[in-house]
Amino acid sequence: MSAADPALGTCPVPLAETEKVLLGHGSGGQLSTELLRDVVVPALGAAATETVPEDAALIGVDGLDLVISTDAFVVSPLFFPGGDIGVLAVHGTINDLAMMGATPLAMAVAYIIEEGFPVADLQRVTTSIGAAAAAAGVPVVTGDTKVVGRGAADGLFVTTTGIGRRLPEARVSAAFARPGDVVLLSGPIGAHGTTILSTREALGFEAEIASDTRPLHRLVAAMVADAKQDIHVMRDPTRGGVASALNEIAVASQAGIEIDEAAVPVPAPVAAACELLGLDPLHVANEGCLVAVVAPAAAEPLLATMRSSPEGPCAVRLGEVVGDHPGRVVMNTVMGGRRVVDMLVGEQLPRIC
Amino acid sequence: MSAADPALGTCPVPLAETEKVLLGHGSGGQLSTELLRDVVVPALGAAATETVPEDAALIGVDGLDLVISTDAFVVSPLFFPGGDIGVLAVHGTINDLAMMGATPLAMAVAYIIEEGFPVADLQRVTTSIGAAAAAAGVPVVTGDTKVVGRGAADGLFVTTTGIGRRLPEARVSAAFARPGDVVLLSGPIGAHGTTILSTREALGFEAEIASDTRPLHRLVAAMVADAKQDIHVMRDPTRGGVASALNEIAVASQAGIEIDEAAVPVPAPVAAACELLGLDPLHVANEGCLVAVVAPAAAEPLLATMRSSPEGPCAVRLGEVVGDHPGRVVMNTVMGGRRVVDMLVGEQLPRIC
Repeated sequence: MSAADPALGTCPVPLAETEKVLLGHGSGGQLSTELLRDVVVPALGAAATETVPEDAALIGVDGLDLVISTDAFVVSPLFFPGGDIGVLAVHGTINDLAMMGATPLAMAVAYIIEEGFPVADLQRVTTSIGAAAAAAGVPVVTGDTKVVGRGAADGLFVTTTGIGRRLPEARVSAAFARPGDVVLLSGPIGAHGTTILSTREALGFEAEIASDTRPLHRLVAAMVADAKQDIHVMRDPTRGGVASALNEIAVASQAGIEIDEAAVPVPAPVAAACELLGLDPLHVANEGCLVAVVAPAAAEPLLATMRSSPEGPCAVRLGEVVGDHPGRVVMNTVMGGRRVVDMLVGEQLPRIC
Repeated sequence: MSAADPALGTCPVPLAETEKVLLGHGSGGQLSTELLRDVVVPALGAAATETVPEDAALIGVDGLDLVISTDAFVVSPLFFPGGDIGVLAVHGTINDLAMMGATPLAMAVAYIIEEGFPVADLQRVTTSIGAAAAAAGVPVVTGDTKVVGRGAADGLFVTTTGIGRRLPEARVSAAFARPGDVVLLSGPIGAHGTTILSTREALGFEAEIASDTRPLHRLVAAMVADAKQDIHVMRDPTRGGVASALNEIAVASQAGIEIDEAAVPVPAPVAAACELLGLDPLHVANEGCLVAVVAPAAAEPLLATMRSSPEGPCAVRLGEVVGDHPGRVVMNTVMGGRRVVDMLVGEQLPRIC
């Protein structure tokens, strides 16, 4: 019955005691991990195949390595500076496939619409989906539309599923980080989450910042062509931010990760918004950058490749994988100290994607 | 501005005038067809690939015929006699793949959960998904979980996406019906829809009836093995019922369909419920039967195959495809008359799946 177990270090409330699903269970952080590990995976039983938490699943069909990924988008508001729920859904799904080293082949889109939702808004979101899919070269091959009564949903939810094909030379997994590897980040962080929050709450920052939503499959293809299996892990730091992505990698690989605070690229308006709101930029969601864990010799050439691509001009070396403190992420601060970078425990920013 | 055009026969309200999404747009009937045709497909633009409305899409990858299907499930209540939202989602997705002549390979599941939803109910639904997937031999390879605030969703929505591989001998499409073909139906109709409605409204019929939800991929495999390309169309009459499925086939194939009222298998409790509620059983949703349009010579052997399978002991010959009245479905009534069987126009039974 007790949540306190000193051996575990942190003591989030066990699921059996909460008995209700909390907003934090959808955060992409610690509570999400527990919901999956303690409820969903055991209940699926023999039907579940996932062992390492990845953004997408690999299935082999007749020697073909297919990758499949699904995501429900519930972002609020539906329209925000830099994008909308439609473009976010397309990019989110493409990026989840890309993080497995896959080229996206096709997409399916399912709508859940609240009765009374303006047809014009549905047209606007669908046009965004069409434009984003066409720009990325990924056709929308099938879909579904359900309508629920007023009050039974909040406007529009969009679930997108993508199917892709793994690039022959890609072999990435959250479990493949090794001590000595270098951690790269393709661009500035925090813009998506702070934009959504600022727009939703009309905080005023939305005039200066915009979501960073963009598809990363072309960047990934260029990186894989360059460094092949020297890329060990790729992850897009969406819900839960860079902190959660790095923690997932550290746990799955049973390795430590050290990053340098000075290297973390936080744009000034994002930093100002986070300061005011009491948010850690490392916990804020992104939809336009990726974290890559790569062999040491491949790091500099890859940084050059990333920086010469339209998706990664501001790519940085964030830190490295170490043999110490396996499963933990530690940051060397600008003040010369060290602090543990935890996974987001509860919910920092609900309905961010 | 006017909806009245005598040349069109029926005159549903055009979308530009309604300007709001209606419950009927999710019915699977006429309004759903219009929403897709007039809003979704044009807005998707070049990214859309679908021309004939099918339950799933076919994509060719390196000579492999893959089939993909997605469905959002919003059924209310979540638990009902004969099943729950989880088992319905698994069967619905498997059946959409099967109706393209495909063997299901893998499934993805996305949850949208309302804050405060009981963890025990989530466990129960997930256990159902796991059991149904394991029984059907289809692994759940990936998923997603989002949580929205209280009042922003109604408990739990489940979106499932399936990927399958088309059986080498299957060549089915809603557009392939030809005059002379025979229309077969694998079992009794109306049980799913009347069960949901009766349970939701506590009408009392739910003691006598139960949802017919079941996976049909094994039945389809047996039928395709038998009749191969003599099976021209397969369709599971879910939302919008048998009437909508037949109308979609008639329109896509530009052929007429005639069915015999005497042959329509409506179980007595379903008939009683429909009578009391003023429902046409042909419009009521099913999740455990299929309609097949087959070459005349293949009809009797296929009926025998269906009747000897666990999924089709009560299979019947429902009618035939004719050269007259292309795009229309006509029923020869037990009283010796004839009547047009229309697609469901608005919404008869919301949140049935």
